[in-house]
Amino acid sequence: MIAILAAFALVQASAAQSQGRVAPDARAPGEIAAAAPAADWVSIDASNLLVVDLAPDAAGRARRAVIELMPAPFAQGWIANIRTLASARWWDGTSVNRVQDNYVVQWGDATEKKPLPAGIRPAPATQYTIALPPAGIAAREARTPYAAGEGLYRGWPIGFAGDRAWPVHCYGMVGVGRNLAPDTGSGAELYAVIGHAPRHLDRNIALVGRVIAGIEHLSSLPRGTEALGFYKTAAERTPIARIRLASDLPAAERPAFESLSTDSASFRAYAEARANRRDAFFNVPAGGADVCNVPVPVRPAR
Amino acid sequence: MIAILAAFALVQASAAQSQGRVAPDARAPGEIAAAAPAADWVSIDASNLLVVDLAPDAAGRARRAVIELMPAPFAQGWIANIRTLASARWWDGTSVNRVQDNYVVQWGDATEKKPLPAGIRPAPATQYTIALPPAGIAAREARTPYAAGEGLYRGWPIGFAGDRAWPVHCYGMVGVGRNLAPDTGSGAELYAVIGHAPRHLDRNIALVGRVIAGIEHLSSLPRGTEALGFYKTAAERTPIARIRLASDLPAAERPAFESLSTDSASFRAYAEARANRRDAFFNVPAGGADVCNVPVPVRPAR
Repeated sequence: MIAILAAFALVQASAAQSQGRVAPDARAPGEIAAAAPAADWVSIDASNLLVVDLAPDAAGRARRAVIELMPAPFAQGWIANIRTLASARWWDGTSVNRVQDNYVVQWGDATEKKPLPAGIRPAPATQYTIALPPAGIAAREARTPYAAGEGLYRGWPIGFAGDRAWPVHCYGMVGVGRNLAPDTGSGAELYAVIGHAPRHLDRNIALVGRVIAGIEHLSSLPRGTEALGFYKTAAERTPIARIRLASDLPAAERPAFESLSTDSASFRAYAEARANRRDAFFNVPAGGADVCNVPVPVRPAR
Repeated sequence: MIAILAAFALVQASAAQSQGRVAPDARAPGEIAAAAPAADWVSIDASNLLVVDLAPDAAGRARRAVIELMPAPFAQGWIANIRTLASARWWDGTSVNRVQDNYVVQWGDATEKKPLPAGIRPAPATQYTIALPPAGIAAREARTPYAAGEGLYRGWPIGFAGDRAWPVHCYGMVGVGRNLAPDTGSGAELYAVIGHAPRHLDRNIALVGRVIAGIEHLSSLPRGTEALGFYKTAAERTPIARIRLASDLPAAERPAFESLSTDSASFRAYAEARANRRDAFFNVPAGGADVCNVPVPVRPAR
């Protein structure tokens, strides 16, 4: 019975897409993404992939997380610094120093005294936001407590109000630790969100990317027992073996990923299904989804 | 400078509260909760505390999570079953079988064949929702993608539309695993949310409580590598030593907690500060907060 329903839904979705609208789809969102044509998937440039290799775990297993850095016009000041830090191998031998439950995992130099490489420049707080895109916001949603609206722009979750837009703190997003303003952080201290979207941080801290693979190696680390989830002892910290841009790795070691274009018909159907689940498990569709409940599908490149 | 601002805010808040309104408060939300008078804290009845003792970790350290069960009118069919299961010591020797990143930790009988104790009764799906409360919804918010509105009622996050309301899937909330409808689950299979609020589950599964202590022992468990985060091998599962109602434990072993009343002036000030952070780190207040970003403060009883 379930298989028959799913096949029927495929026919419906196909007819609807040819008419340029999004029809109700009884497939699960993941099924819709998996069935998207190759043309709807976008290769992620190796120069936008930051590869984080933690020290192996207690059983000797490798632990790699991969971060996709944001494209322009987002946060390019900090991202330039991050490229410089990775090329200088600055993070090698640093550590994960803070894991706060339902909040963030943070890494960098625990001593806060390691000199930064040449070429690190402060990024202005004006780069926390961008000009509101004139068009191209997918899964646009005005019913949000946080702003005039939210949605996905060029593959990234944004909020917007007036003539400005900004990336938002969804699960897995990566941001730049900082001291009190006017400091904006250099990019040397980074964190990843591992809990419910802490949207109060939006526009207050720079976001620079998101974890697209291996987040479990960060999110399942032991929580720190000191204030803000910092570890009490150095022994509790997880060492970072190396952090590199994928484009700086030998071709054979270079990971490759692609993401579902948020401008595609497949993504529109996927987002609609995230907001209105009709697959077999569900009785009542939610009728909507906040932007952090529409994660962009990512997969290893084929 | 920060200390001076904080002292000034205390005076402001006090004046505003005596006039019955919520003034802007420059204290952090946690500071507001910590300063709440004793009368604003409500003791949680021991018969509503479900104590989950996992097997000790590899270093021999105890791992205890404590779940607060919902009061009436929420989900009392499943909660009656959960009391029966705990009294029958049914969970002792079962295990955590599934950990899916940014989603749920699930526990129960991995064989799915262990007989249930006498007295377990199916709960009707009508108990997924309750009648809309006529009043008493704190941090009420109409700007939500999910319903007509959301807020906190008698200490619990709810959504509502028309004449019905329902508890919502925030981080830490505990729900009842089930098979396809019309099954509603017995309460023997439970899960806790460990990621961004999966609001598409609201009204589709019974919620019965929330983890109020020790969630890190669940959220930091290794993720399962099979579909839906199930573990591949029995050895990966975390054994459950015992699950008891606190009221069934000897007085000396009984944990005790209290929560900040969502009907109190302190909670109103706390919720306002969650939506509009003015403490030193923040430059731009968010201007709002979804209900899952207003977690109810809980502390050990004093």
